[in-house]
Amino acid sequence: MSPQPVAPAPAATSARAPKQDRSRVTRQRLLEAAVDCLAEVGWTGSTVAVVAERAGVSRGAAQHHFPTREDLFTAAVEHVAVQRHAAVQSAAAALPSRGPNRTEAVVRMLVDLYTGPLFRAALQLWVAVSTDDQLRPRVLELESRVGRETHHTAVALLGADESHPGVRETVQATLDMARGLGLADILSDDGARRARIVRQWARILDAQLSSNSFE
Amino acid sequence: MSPQPVAPAPAATSARAPKQDRSRVTRQRLLEAAVDCLAEVGWTGSTVAVVAERAGVSRGAAQHHFPTREDLFTAAVEHVAVQRHAAVQSAAAALPSRGPNRTEAVVRMLVDLYTGPLFRAALQLWVAVSTDDQLRPRVLELESRVGRETHHTAVALLGADESHPGVRETVQATLDMARGLGLADILSDDGARRARIVRQWARILDAQLSSNSFE
Repeated sequence: MSPQPVAPAPAATSARAPKQDRSRVTRQRLLEAAVDCLAEVGWTGSTVAVVAERAGVSRGAAQHHFPTREDLFTAAVEHVAVQRHAAVQSAAAALPSRGPNRTEAVVRMLVDLYTGPLFRAALQLWVAVSTDDQLRPRVLELESRVGRETHHTAVALLGADESHPGVRETVQATLDMARGLGLADILSDDGARRARIVRQWARILDAQLSSNSFE
Repeated sequence: MSPQPVAPAPAATSARAPKQDRSRVTRQRLLEAAVDCLAEVGWTGSTVAVVAERAGVSRGAAQHHFPTREDLFTAAVEHVAVQRHAAVQSAAAALPSRGPNRTEAVVRMLVDLYTGPLFRAALQLWVAVSTDDQLRPRVLELESRVGRETHHTAVALLGADESHPGVRETVQATLDMARGLGLADILSDDGARRARIVRQWARILDAQLSSNSFE
């Protein structure tokens, strides 16, 4: 099934909304409550019952949509990853078209993907499944897919030419740094330090990518 | 109390070993078992009882050394961080003294700090406490201290001159990238990709740090 635009909540929850729309809204509420729950209380405290209550949905309805806890949380992390990816692409249209300000804005945007509730939720999921041989392949598949999409977005936004030696690895390093910055932010607000690193990283990328692109 | 060199286990566990030495060996066994346990089964499954059994120590003795679960695991992550730090400093003596091979070896060594059981254990602890307001300050204090030491080591090994603009942030970015690479490795072996990124990042650092150092 291809991704559907999200129906506005007030119309979709009214008594006259078709059953299919109400079902979609219920599903979306569960997914959003699951992400918030994972980010706030962690994997151990995140159960289907807790998420259903937070979403204002009956436990039966929750289990209809997501038979297992793993179904719910994997789908939740994927759902928000897709939303964030779409948000990045639309925000990218507002960036300056050239120059060092553009590079810094792009790096900031990429780094922002790894801070906030989605990253916190995804991190809880990764760490929980890292010790679980059954669940790991599933989250790994999701993570690989999201990682590939993010890499493509980064290449496009930076105007990087991956046919030049080292450029692919430089873009990957940028995303690994972004992930590391996200991790540094989970215990305390690391925003001031992060802003300085983003600025310096943008300078490095400008030097690296332009020397490769125009040689 | 200043850090003590670790007494060899066979002598210290013999019946003739002084009580103080036996106590130190028991403590060390518990700390090492705690790190392995955290890395392998995660925070939820890591209790004092499980660690005591793994270490071959009675539960009473474990609780004598570490009254709470948090005492045990915070001490465990710190213990191994101190050991790793010492290992890095002694391994650093074997590095080539100059040239691009040195930079790549240094970057690899720094990145290695964020892979393996210690990083996995620390990650489990960070993520567990990120949703716990009481425990977070304690782990944050430990993490800040270990982070500062690692930064000083990186500056020294790279021969970076932080009085030049951007150099401090470049070293920080290197460690954030290393942390991100560690996180990328928790779901599957990311070694091949990581080696390519380390090589490229070493090239970038050589260009960045030499243009700053010799300008």
